[in-house]
Amino acid sequence: MPGRGVRFSPTHRYGAPMTGFRHVVLITWIEGTTTAQVEEVAARLRDLPAVIPAIRDYSLGTNAGVNAGGADFAIVADFADRDAYATYRDDPVHRAVVDDMKPLIASRTAIQYEL
Amino acid sequence: MPGRGVRFSPTHRYGAPMTGFRHVVLITWIEGTTTAQVEEVAARLRDLPAVIPAIRDYSLGTNAGVNAGGADFAIVADFADRDAYATYRDDPVHRAVVDDMKPLIASRTAIQYEL
Repeated sequence: MPGRGVRFSPTHRYGAPMTGFRHVVLITWIEGTTTAQVEEVAARLRDLPAVIPAIRDYSLGTNAGVNAGGADFAIVADFADRDAYATYRDDPVHRAVVDDMKPLIASRTAIQYEL
Repeated sequence: MPGRGVRFSPTHRYGAPMTGFRHVVLITWIEGTTTAQVEEVAARLRDLPAVIPAIRDYSLGTNAGVNAGGADFAIVADFADRDAYATYRDDPVHRAVVDDMKPLIASRTAIQYEL
């Protein structure tokens, strides 16, 4: 089945070499965070690929409610390599969104890994 | 740029409708967990797409060491929909790996979201 397999990057084609660098963030919002606040954050994040070309793929999601006890919000961002990730991480437009998100964050877990 | 954008699923083609369901797990191992133990877990997880056809894409990663304080290990698994995810979640081969991982896990954060 094309497109199905292990360690595929989002732009991977079946049988092609797979490379890239992935950044994953899982966030739990503080009690009282509103849907409107989350939507505003999501909208600002969603704009980042247009202003930070280092981003190859960008996926945002809110907990679908299948299991109890999960995080509230996810960011999965893919880059060509770790330098491209660092460009995103340190971009001032991104930093501004991060700074504005911070007061809403109860807990944050992140990882970066080679695809 | 084909393949670059927002909320693309791993099998998404540029301009095509994007659907799917993503499961993300970030794990921190207990102090003293060895590379060999992590490799064994990763090898068993890596075998799952071959035995659980519900898995569309499966990505495993260990922390690349770019930032301090991140999780140790990531699983990003994509499915056609939430039912396919539930099939994976409840598959006995998967459950056996999860049960054997549990003693190594200091903390685990997960989310499921619509792509």
